[in-house]
Amino acid sequence: MTTIMPSIEPSGERIVALCDKLALHSSQPDGLTRIFLSPEQAAASQLVLGWMRDVGMHARIDAIGNVVGRYEGIETGAPCLMLGSHLDSVRDAGKYDGPLGVVTAIECVRALHARRQRLEFAIEIYGFADEEGVRFGATLLGSRAVAGTFRPANLEARDGGGITMRQAMENAGLDPDQLPAATRRRDEVLAYVELHIEQGPVLEAEGLPLGVVTAINGQSRYRIEIAGMAGHAGTVPMGSMRRDALAGAAECVLAVERICGAVPELVGTVGSIETLPGAVNVIPGRARFTLDVRSPHDDTRRRAVGELLATFASICEQRHLSLSHHVMLESRVAQCAPWLMTQLEAAVAADGIAVRRLPSGAGHDGMAMIDVTDIGMLFVRCKGGISHHPAESVTAADVAAGARALLRFIENFRPVAAEPAT
Amino acid sequence: MTTIMPSIEPSGERIVALCDKLALHSSQPDGLTRIFLSPEQAAASQLVLGWMRDVGMHARIDAIGNVVGRYEGIETGAPCLMLGSHLDSVRDAGKYDGPLGVVTAIECVRALHARRQRLEFAIEIYGFADEEGVRFGATLLGSRAVAGTFRPANLEARDGGGITMRQAMENAGLDPDQLPAATRRRDEVLAYVELHIEQGPVLEAEGLPLGVVTAINGQSRYRIEIAGMAGHAGTVPMGSMRRDALAGAAECVLAVERICGAVPELVGTVGSIETLPGAVNVIPGRARFTLDVRSPHDDTRRRAVGELLATFASICEQRHLSLSHHVMLESRVAQCAPWLMTQLEAAVAADGIAVRRLPSGAGHDGMAMIDVTDIGMLFVRCKGGISHHPAESVTAADVAAGARALLRFIENFRPVAAEPAT
Repeated sequence: MTTIMPSIEPSGERIVALCDKLALHSSQPDGLTRIFLSPEQAAASQLVLGWMRDVGMHARIDAIGNVVGRYEGIETGAPCLMLGSHLDSVRDAGKYDGPLGVVTAIECVRALHARRQRLEFAIEIYGFADEEGVRFGATLLGSRAVAGTFRPANLEARDGGGITMRQAMENAGLDPDQLPAATRRRDEVLAYVELHIEQGPVLEAEGLPLGVVTAINGQSRYRIEIAGMAGHAGTVPMGSMRRDALAGAAECVLAVERICGAVPELVGTVGSIETLPGAVNVIPGRARFTLDVRSPHDDTRRRAVGELLATFASICEQRHLSLSHHVMLESRVAQCAPWLMTQLEAAVAADGIAVRRLPSGAGHDGMAMIDVTDIGMLFVRCKGGISHHPAESVTAADVAAGARALLRFIENFRPVAAEPAT
Repeated sequence: MTTIMPSIEPSGERIVALCDKLALHSSQPDGLTRIFLSPEQAAASQLVLGWMRDVGMHARIDAIGNVVGRYEGIETGAPCLMLGSHLDSVRDAGKYDGPLGVVTAIECVRALHARRQRLEFAIEIYGFADEEGVRFGATLLGSRAVAGTFRPANLEARDGGGITMRQAMENAGLDPDQLPAATRRRDEVLAYVELHIEQGPVLEAEGLPLGVVTAINGQSRYRIEIAGMAGHAGTVPMGSMRRDALAGAAECVLAVERICGAVPELVGTVGSIETLPGAVNVIPGRARFTLDVRSPHDDTRRRAVGELLATFASICEQRHLSLSHHVMLESRVAQCAPWLMTQLEAAVAADGIAVRRLPSGAGHDGMAMIDVTDIGMLFVRCKGGISHHPAESVTAADVAAGARALLRFIENFRPVAAEPAT
């Protein structure tokens, strides 16, 4: 790896190189897996702490293991513009999902620090310790601790090896009883703004390096089970003597495609399906599948889920099958604040880039941070929309454009007084 | 278990009780699993050998482990009417699939022996050592050895524990090099007739205890794989940006139901399906499923498979997916001999039972035996069409009707000179 020296403006090559360096801290020798409270994550956090200190920030690890750097404003102790993203990864991950936002923010502060520039507000950068939720099933543990919405019951959740989160924290030298100390007050934070790869194909398809996020879509996830009657594939005639659970499920899969395809920005996916007993020569007695529905509008998503479940029920009734469903996840839309979108758009447009607003189909730390402050997000184009995969890829030019826009946004940032909590 | 004494006529209760007794020889303490060349099968074979000897038969284990009993006719060494079925089972099996045919045949001979009745032909009863093919993947190993179509390559097949069939035979005290000795000559056998549970719901639906089989259906089994493009369930819009392999597979599943449902006696089943990567939040990049197509007519089956594969290809082309398929099994129809069907029908009708001809959707040893002699089959109604399941069930009354018909068939059996081999 060539060492690329920092200049006054953030360098896309340097940001990519730093992300690649972070990716060496992995539990997987031939790829990237870095989960919450692991030794690899502790090492990655130390690296980030060092980078933060290099750029004039006061840096620390908070009570849940988030890396937090603070760059004071003109007046010490001023409320902060909070930037950041997450430092944990999925299994066999890409290198930019999360770290790109942390590293780009640090490199923006590097530019300010190099110019000895102080602003009317402080800047804080968070490298959240858990966003993906790989280890304990629950997501956004790092940002929920900051937003004050961490549920203590999560401390008793166990990982695949039977270790509770409480034990894992203690093993990592963290004190679970100190968790409330990670929470930030609303008056300490002006806004939370995150730069992230798009993880989708929209910007690439439109030939744009950047996009301004309108909302982090709400999600509904269900497990659906259809029960019919198993039977011998050779001896039970077609027609009314068969109650084939998979044939019913196949109609449901196509209904998801049809119903969700008819509404703009609504997406619906059946990602996983299985049959029981699942033998080549047995008519499926049961079929189980997952349903994932997302939209930037809560009412649209809820209406779609209602229509889907009603359609599934009608399909099953006609086929003399029985239907059951179980909610796995229900999360509301996290709307980006219009005033932050406006300022992000101005920063993008100043570089001569056409402004594209788009919702985020993927979940992000902003979903938790919205409980403590207004949120905004800037998307950077990624190759083929691929994410959560080693083939995740960004260009240094796009990253540089993202960093320039973020730096310009910071320099021109004008806080809007938060509405009083209702 | 009450011991039911044999009478001159075969007793349904006694036959059921003997099947239940055989089922105690199982590798599974709480159910029935009895696979080829297992200690349980050796014990079951000893039990059957004893029952054969009790009814005046000369009984032995042949070179592949089949139990063979011979009841001489008026002249010693006469060609035989061969009866029987298989003694192995699937995993977690029912108690009647296979054993019912062996035990009923023995009980018919018991009746002849009790009356000191000898016929103009010998009777041989086979309890085949492998029909289900659970252990080594290849089916009908017992009857193929008898028919002379056993493929020596099967000796090198390995079971789940890595043991070859050759080794397993040696462990069971059998000599693989002696396998050809199990093969019977065409001039030794007048016909092969098997009584078996229907394993389907047709007789029950029509209120009939017995049915005369017209053919053992031919089968085509395929593995189908559809490849599209995996993507984030939240970020890739519906429509042309998605290449969802499961949505394509769902259309294929419904095409199987539609196309096979339109042709009498044709059946088509997708028994197993999976997606890759198979996560709730990932658009399936690949979908794999099985296809099982059967018909009593080879040309019908082949036409249907051709139409299905063409339809799959067209579905995939429209969706920009790619399709591949792999033949797992291709087996021709085994036609039951009309002259045997006629004699079986006469035996059924003599009891005042309406004659129902029906094809066998399941595979049977007759598929192998047809290579050495003409075949016939008599089906006994089973509860709900359930088979390959502990809930497999027959009534003693239906079994008695089957035994009476089989005995009457034997007593009135008139061999038809086999056509010269072409």
